[in-house]
Amino acid sequence: MQTALLAELLERVRATNPLVHCITNYVTACDVANALIACGGSPIMADEEADACAITRICGGLVLNIGTLGTRTAATMHAVGSIAGELHHPIVLDPVGAGASALRTETAGALVDGLPVTVVRGNMSEIRALSGAAAATRGVDANPDDAVTDENLAASASFARALAAQLGCVVAITGAIDLVADAARAVAIRNGSALMGKITGTGCMLDAIIAAYAVANPDSPLEAAVAAIAGWGIAGEVAAGRMGALDGNASFRTYLIDAAFNLTGTALAEAARIEEV
Amino acid sequence: MQTALLAELLERVRATNPLVHCITNYVTACDVANALIACGGSPIMADEEADACAITRICGGLVLNIGTLGTRTAATMHAVGSIAGELHHPIVLDPVGAGASALRTETAGALVDGLPVTVVRGNMSEIRALSGAAAATRGVDANPDDAVTDENLAASASFARALAAQLGCVVAITGAIDLVADAARAVAIRNGSALMGKITGTGCMLDAIIAAYAVANPDSPLEAAVAAIAGWGIAGEVAAGRMGALDGNASFRTYLIDAAFNLTGTALAEAARIEEV
Amino acid sequence: MQTALLAELLERVRATNPLVHCITNYVTACDVANALIACGGSPIMADEEADACAITRICGGLVLNIGTLGTRTAATMHAVGSIAGELHHPIVLDPVGAGASALRTETAGALVDGLPVTVVRGNMSEIRALSGAAAATRGVDANPDDAVTDENLAASASFARALAAQLGCVVAITGAIDLVADAARAVAIRNGSALMGKITGTGCMLDAIIAAYAVANPDSPLEAAVAAIAGWGIAGEVAAGRMGALDGNASFRTYLIDAAFNLTGTALAEAARIEEV
Repeated sequence: MQTALLAELLERVRATNPLVHCITNYVTACDVANALIACGGSPIMADEEADACAITRICGGLVLNIGTLGTRTAATMHAVGSIAGELHHPIVLDPVGAGASALRTETAGALVDGLPVTVVRGNMSEIRALSGAAAATRGVDANPDDAVTDENLAASASFARALAAQLGCVVAITGAIDLVADAARAVAIRNGSALMGKITGTGCMLDAIIAAYAVANPDSPLEAAVAAIAGWGIAGEVAAGRMGALDGNASFRTYLIDAAFNLTGTALAEAARIEEV
Repeated sequence: MQTALLAELLERVRATNPLVHCITNYVTACDVANALIACGGSPIMADEEADACAITRICGGLVLNIGTLGTRTAATMHAVGSIAGELHHPIVLDPVGAGASALRTETAGALVDGLPVTVVRGNMSEIRALSGAAAATRGVDANPDDAVTDENLAASASFARALAAQLGCVVAITGAIDLVADAARAVAIRNGSALMGKITGTGCMLDAIIAAYAVANPDSPLEAAVAAIAGWGIAGEVAAGRMGALDGNASFRTYLIDAAFNLTGTALAEAARIEEV
Repeated sequence: MQTALLAELLERVRATNPLVHCITNYVTACDVANALIACGGSPIMADEEADACAITRICGGLVLNIGTLGTRTAATMHAVGSIAGELHHPIVLDPVGAGASALRTETAGALVDGLPVTVVRGNMSEIRALSGAAAATRGVDANPDDAVTDENLAASASFARALAAQLGCVVAITGAIDLVADAARAVAIRNGSALMGKITGTGCMLDAIIAAYAVANPDSPLEAAVAAIAGWGIAGEVAAGRMGALDGNASFRTYLIDAAFNLTGTALAEAARIEEV
């Protein structure tokens, strides 16, 4: 995959301003909205079923994030996901905390089984839980034992490709090294900053960004996810570079979204560190 | 309308610290609270009916924002709105996404019909939907075709005045040019920055600010809305002027609320660009 | 109490990264999460009963904050609180707005009566309402008449100790002068900045920070609360010192969390202004 392609994918997002329906958690919803705008999309949130079904019809893509899962919103997610599927809208599923509670694991499993999900994104613990493997998710954070490393990269890529084949969608596993796979290919992305783990919502924001990229680039979901994740990692690098002596994670949050706002296709193509594995 | 009046209206807000009950969406609730504090008010949020009815009684004003509408909160909005009406508290209604779903259009319509609303604030697409005109709201953003421009300003002002007469309240239509009207008068406001459209919640925050101004200035709802909107636009201009090369929409959000926090009556009177139309 | 002890308590938080289950309000949830991370903890939010009970089991501590109270979440709070009690997890209760509505006062009372709460934290109006004293809470802010001052410090400390004895938990009353008491001792803390009252969520964030300190220091809940509150006050002082001419409450919010992120045990020990009263 050429990094020049990533620039094209980004520019298509900026040119088309995809409208993304986000059913996400109330913790990070505001940052999700602002990060999505920063990347060239537009957010709308609706989770009451009658409203949400109508909203999905006017949008281009859908994010389902179970970060503050409720039975009411789970039912809404199935209903709007079916509509999005009929309309061939990209669906991004984030199984937040799968493995940390039975309800989360089961809900995430039911959503990925029942809906034509385009991209599943989570940390390795969540993705392992979704795959049915035994997993010990540490709350909403990955178990350190699950980290993708240079040592287990080939095996992790095989796991991701196999799961993508099984689920029939792109699988995106984010962490220090990110992995994006479909049934045939896996791409490792080495952008980002450790500070991204020091704020809440880095993953939730990325869900919506991936959705925007997938809407704007409907024929290339794998590439769209790679571009979104590499771009977000580069934004993290720029933000980390901007940190002053008094700055902490709150300033980092601001700088991260700022950097996404200012990211150009050229900068993305130059700074992306991707390789097929 | 003299801009010196606007300074008085602002100073009355700062002097009286109005307590505003906000039933708003979970996406922007935090920014709404901080923006309201910045302008001199105090926020309280409660949306469970039994709680919300009691909270309304101790507040001075009420915001009803349907940004993440639910049937439960819609019922609460009617209940607390009736109480606020009995107490002669100003009520600000924001029909977020009216026109984008039937539930939103109908709920907004039922609220404005059933309650003694003081100010309705939305973008032109939402306000047109509320008026019963055919409208194609683009999610929660205005349809560009609906923009108030110099060319259609007189016609837009007539529409706003007529709707204000029909609804029996002040109508505030915000966009690049803002319009505030009652049955007799319409005022155009030309403050603001395009960056205000690059963050979520600019309108939601303004709802609460308008409510604070209306509480502090109960005999002048039109003027209160003009002062609140002009002040918010000026804050946007100050924030835009503060943007550095690395800043993006997240920094703008911070600068916007900061500028509202620091806005003085003198600065408002000097920078307000208002005209009756 | 020696301030050197506070440094040890802080360092134990940073070393053990306590996972805290927060059932809090949707207004400040994002800031709560980021402030908790800043101080060395990790957040997880879940409020649907089936999910929340499982999440509590994998966490080390629990925050119950009734800021946007609902009957559904009140029931969840009782259920997860019982589990946390069985597991001997610290529980921090924030009776937000007790005294402002009957539902809030009753719910807070039922929670403190029914659960083995470790620390109750609120402003004086809320704490007085919880104690059954007549109180006139001003929304979610303290009634100025209730402020702890040098003049009423001894009486306030007696009240706090007596309430702590009655409730069987640590009582933390925050304001310009903070008071933390158990049945035997009361400590006054004189750190902080008036700007902390100009943003929403200062108290909510502190709830989660206290929980992290109590998890990391399970045998010293009084000292843990003192360290958390003094540290938060010092962060407020650092943030206030960083304010520029254009900065307002939004920048202060960022600086406050930043300062918590950068707070060291040494700085805490040096800057803490505590005294037994």
